[in-house]
Amino acid sequence: MTKHIYLDHAATTPTDPRVVKAMAPYWTKNFGNPSSLYYIGQRAKNTLDNSRIAVAKIFNSQPEEVIFTGGGTESINLAIKGAVIASRLTPAHLITSNFEHHAVLNAVQALKNQGHEVSLIPVDADGFIIQDKLWSEIQDNTVLISIMMANNEVGTIEPIQEIGAHLEKLNKERKAKNLPHIFFHTDACQAAGALELNVEKLHVDLLSINGSKIYGPKGVGALYIRRGTALKALVDGGGQEKNLRSGTENIPGIVGLATALNIAEQNREKENKRLISLRDWTIKKLLTTIPKTLLNGHPTQRLPNNINISILDIEGEAMLLYLDEIGIQASTGSACTAQDLEPSHVIRALGRPYEAAHGSLRLTLGHSTQKEDLVFLSKKLPGIVKYLRQVSPINVDMNTLHSSIKKYPREIIKL
Amino acid sequence: MTKHIYLDHAATTPTDPRVVKAMAPYWTKNFGNPSSLYYIGQRAKNTLDNSRIAVAKIFNSQPEEVIFTGGGTESINLAIKGAVIASRLTPAHLITSNFEHHAVLNAVQALKNQGHEVSLIPVDADGFIIQDKLWSEIQDNTVLISIMMANNEVGTIEPIQEIGAHLEKLNKERKAKNLPHIFFHTDACQAAGALELNVEKLHVDLLSINGSKIYGPKGVGALYIRRGTALKALVDGGGQEKNLRSGTENIPGIVGLATALNIAEQNREKENKRLISLRDWTIKKLLTTIPKTLLNGHPTQRLPNNINISILDIEGEAMLLYLDEIGIQASTGSACTAQDLEPSHVIRALGRPYEAAHGSLRLTLGHSTQKEDLVFLSKKLPGIVKYLRQVSPINVDMNTLHSSIKKYPREIIKL
Repeated sequence: MTKHIYLDHAATTPTDPRVVKAMAPYWTKNFGNPSSLYYIGQRAKNTLDNSRIAVAKIFNSQPEEVIFTGGGTESINLAIKGAVIASRLTPAHLITSNFEHHAVLNAVQALKNQGHEVSLIPVDADGFIIQDKLWSEIQDNTVLISIMMANNEVGTIEPIQEIGAHLEKLNKERKAKNLPHIFFHTDACQAAGALELNVEKLHVDLLSINGSKIYGPKGVGALYIRRGTALKALVDGGGQEKNLRSGTENIPGIVGLATALNIAEQNREKENKRLISLRDWTIKKLLTTIPKTLLNGHPTQRLPNNINISILDIEGEAMLLYLDEIGIQASTGSACTAQDLEPSHVIRALGRPYEAAHGSLRLTLGHSTQKEDLVFLSKKLPGIVKYLRQVSPINVDMNTLHSSIKKYPREIIKL
Repeated sequence: MTKHIYLDHAATTPTDPRVVKAMAPYWTKNFGNPSSLYYIGQRAKNTLDNSRIAVAKIFNSQPEEVIFTGGGTESINLAIKGAVIASRLTPAHLITSNFEHHAVLNAVQALKNQGHEVSLIPVDADGFIIQDKLWSEIQDNTVLISIMMANNEVGTIEPIQEIGAHLEKLNKERKAKNLPHIFFHTDACQAAGALELNVEKLHVDLLSINGSKIYGPKGVGALYIRRGTALKALVDGGGQEKNLRSGTENIPGIVGLATALNIAEQNREKENKRLISLRDWTIKKLLTTIPKTLLNGHPTQRLPNNINISILDIEGEAMLLYLDEIGIQASTGSACTAQDLEPSHVIRALGRPYEAAHGSLRLTLGHSTQKEDLVFLSKKLPGIVKYLRQVSPINVDMNTLHSSIKKYPREIIKL
């Protein structure tokens, strides 16, 4: 019997059966439009309000500061484009990192194409934002900083709280000088479910999450918008979601998102402990049993479920297909770019050469992951790697590789 | 026992149990990300491809000409903003009517605010676009015409096929003169399920539909994009949906949309016949038993499920609450604007005075509607109206009202 060992929870999670159950009444029975004045419309509105309260509780925010969207990518686009366009500065300047998800990178590129200015801050070899460079890059017309809470490929957890607190001080100085406020957005799509999303502790103005990464439904996300943060809508219409995201509200999806977030919050600490132990066991096992391997991302300041290892001298895609044949689903990096065979911009941002990016293996654990799955993987993978290396024309020298990993200072990219 | 007579299917429809069933395997079991290379990812991709083929079949288009979105409003915004921005003209000029849904009107307003030019063509007393005015309004820099297929409030069915065919000829002349192509978008959110969506017959380049109006899931829509129609994305990211709508695909929702559209197509003719009979019976009954009433929209060229009657001298909202108390859910107009008490722009566009717009009652029938429901309504409504008129300070003279309904020529509004 073929195994089914899903180790790609960062690409998408199955919807939790409890979430499916929570959504069930809202398809056919309680299907009203929250804008309708009659009873079943108002009941839908109550459901919407309650979901908003539930999400706000986890954000430690007011319910009015939460809106629902069609997914994480839309939340991110609305936060970034919405804040820059609402600033009414031309050009406005925004800062992010070269380490972000494509939702952020392509949103800022679109703004660049509209005439705005974008600085991409580099990360260090572990994937941490180089903060000196971030602060030195601020201009008079800077209106937004967007830094991800945790990286989707290598799991590195950024010091959002520290950046947010420093920015708060800076904004006070800017206010005295009559300079525009710099809003702070964090893409928490990968962090949600694993890290605390307390917007007060984090000192963020905008925070994006996604249902499909937290065992919730696909096609629904949320955006925290601190009171006083002006955004321009991307989608105009009936004025739903405070005029920021028009369209009949997806009540089943919204209920599902709120339920999933709640379940994640209840189990977070216990599940993190379990996953960290599995993660660290697997990392140690793979690094010690497979020669010519490198851990990508910080050893401990990483998402509890994230393992990302560069396995030299092989093509990642071939490895994935062999793993798939024995029932293990894994990834080389972001699923969003899995189809093109470009080496990961995230692994490259760590300063690692193409050779390391090509053979990267991302394993992201989840609720269903058991120790025996990882034992099975760690028994099978060395043989697959050995075989692929036998047929590979590449043979990288590890010393040369290590010395080619770029050292500071890394460069800021101006788009 | 309180009755539940839902007569607001234009606001939103319950999800068909067959649709719920069709979505079921995609939550927890077949939950893969279509961008993933392994088996369950590729299976998700196949599901996505098959849903696209199913929708394309109903559009009589190629599958590559269909993309999935987060709803009808998003489809409309992407079509309109996307086409105008992709034209790279500043200012570009676009034409729509003053009769459209807010998704269209607010999308064109956003473009106007960005410096583009917008003409709103009036409709006649039945709600038909005044075509002379449409054609006379075309400028050298016109790049888009957007006309709804059927109106959401009064049900009038626009002559899309005729407009499309004429525009096709016009575009040939424009090509010879080296003028930009004028793309043709139709908002088919209300028409879907009731009218044929054959894009070849309709001669449209862009067509928007919505799951939540056709007994499909909420939070998912589709957009037909004729090959050669350039659009600029609103949401950038991982490049899904041909780079036009990034974000992990909502597979359950997409399967649900395709299933709902298929079911609608199978039953369309039979169900239309049934609804037209119920509609016409009810219209006749209400107009004859309640004095001082006016039918809004064309008597026959209207959606099979749409009844919209102005009942003079009363406030529509009060009538709705009394109907709700006896278990009948109805509307005064668009649910999207039900919360604000502005008189409907659609009723106003017909040339009817405020007095008529304030007391409009929209009844939109659906699968669950039975003759006995409408008999019950037609027994109860006259009494409610009589009571409300007794307590109403308004007493409009019908002759004055009729003579105040504006005659041709109506004006074009330039935003």
